[in-house]
Amino acid sequence: MVASGAKLGILAGAGELPLRVIEACRATNRPFFVLGFEGSADPAIAAGVPHAWVRLGAAGEALRILRENGVAELVMVGGVKRPSVLQLRPDWHAAKFFARIGYRALGDDGLLKAVIHELEEVEGFRVVGVESILGSAVAPEGPLGRHAPDEQARQDIAQGFRIIRALGALDIGQAVVVQQGLVLGVEAIEGTDALIERCRALRREGPGGVLVKGAKPGQERRADLPTIGPRTIAAAVAAGLRGVAVDAGSTILIDRAELVAAADRAGIFVAGVPAT
Amino acid sequence: MVASGAKLGILAGAGELPLRVIEACRATNRPFFVLGFEGSADPAIAAGVPHAWVRLGAAGEALRILRENGVAELVMVGGVKRPSVLQLRPDWHAAKFFARIGYRALGDDGLLKAVIHELEEVEGFRVVGVESILGSAVAPEGPLGRHAPDEQARQDIAQGFRIIRALGALDIGQAVVVQQGLVLGVEAIEGTDALIERCRALRREGPGGVLVKGAKPGQERRADLPTIGPRTIAAAVAAGLRGVAVDAGSTILIDRAELVAAADRAGIFVAGVPAT
Repeated sequence: MVASGAKLGILAGAGELPLRVIEACRATNRPFFVLGFEGSADPAIAAGVPHAWVRLGAAGEALRILRENGVAELVMVGGVKRPSVLQLRPDWHAAKFFARIGYRALGDDGLLKAVIHELEEVEGFRVVGVESILGSAVAPEGPLGRHAPDEQARQDIAQGFRIIRALGALDIGQAVVVQQGLVLGVEAIEGTDALIERCRALRREGPGGVLVKGAKPGQERRADLPTIGPRTIAAAVAAGLRGVAVDAGSTILIDRAELVAAADRAGIFVAGVPAT
Repeated sequence: MVASGAKLGILAGAGELPLRVIEACRATNRPFFVLGFEGSADPAIAAGVPHAWVRLGAAGEALRILRENGVAELVMVGGVKRPSVLQLRPDWHAAKFFARIGYRALGDDGLLKAVIHELEEVEGFRVVGVESILGSAVAPEGPLGRHAPDEQARQDIAQGFRIIRALGALDIGQAVVVQQGLVLGVEAIEGTDALIERCRALRREGPGGVLVKGAKPGQERRADLPTIGPRTIAAAVAAGLRGVAVDAGSTILIDRAELVAAADRAGIFVAGVPAT
């Protein structure tokens, strides 16, 4: 990827993705500054890098820190557990913004779109997608490892994507588990790992289910792209799933080599499916 | 309710509903015969009543037993954990039927519709809805107890019903939990009690969520109508929910008096919402 010269502000939520972005900046000598969200980002990501911590509701403070550190471009990476308004304790800056956009009425994607619009049009930052920094981490089309879905799995994948699109249009979740035509579970706020874990107990006899994970129709691509990693594969294997299917071109793969090796070892497939 | 004179065959799945139907038959001196599905129906329901047990896949045997016992009219009550084809071990009669309708391609409602059509048009039984036997157990419009939803709860209820209708069109689940506009959980195969239980850990600060449960659009009303009972209320209270909203006119209330008393004691609402 061609890196821009501007200092990158990394708005860091949960998971390993912020660390991968930091590594990519270091590998290309790109200047960066990490703004970690308290309670979401892993404290370990801040070790030895320029950083600050903020509450999710402290928008005024966050913007001040980013400007003081000369940040011009932003990337939002890693999940943030969405709080109720009460938990959020918005500062004056955030409260005005939430009142204007109608916090409660917006789903996750609607909220992220409003935040990005605000950061660009009102606050004057440029917001880029994580795939512009971690280009090789986007899922390609077709099987990623040695195993490929068979006919039953392909039927379950097609059914899964139909459900994902319908759920996505309601701005609910990104993932579903289907086994032999039975919908074992649907993701809402609990996250994909918790979804897979509960499907372990719901599984039926015979060929195992598939995890299908994909973007919402029209989803803002600069935040919250579907993500899978080696941990997803480990959870899928433990739950007796036969494979994982994701949106080709709009799913981020964390530690792709390790992810594929884990799937190959366990005999399950990981496949990118083109959007229809 | 006016009871028909014909002997009623009670096809019994899980939960308390089969017992309520047996009690209603006794109260009206209506002859009946219970056919319990092994692994689903509570063994206690068979005590002291004419009955037989069958595997779910043993369609030929089930039909023979019903005919030998002079059953003309059938009611299907209580949930059945839908197995994979392999677990089902269909007998010859069932295998032919499943091959004809395409078992794997059908959602729950599609499958139940096909079964009812087969029982009536091919096998010559009459299939009635449970509400024709337990008429007073159908949820009316409006609050059932002392408490009513406030403005925030009404918004969450409206959002919940929008999701239920969309999910229902995909023939997935019947229930969803919404808190302050956040979709905490969506029901698939795990059932409503498990949905409520996991939302306990997902709850946010502030006013609690609501359980919304409703029929699928165009749902076959003679099987699998949404059902709530005192156990639903206990689970909702334990999970910090503020209330339960159901489809007026097409939700079965188990032990209505006890259900309402439990909700009143806990200070939560139970409300029937007219279909829009």
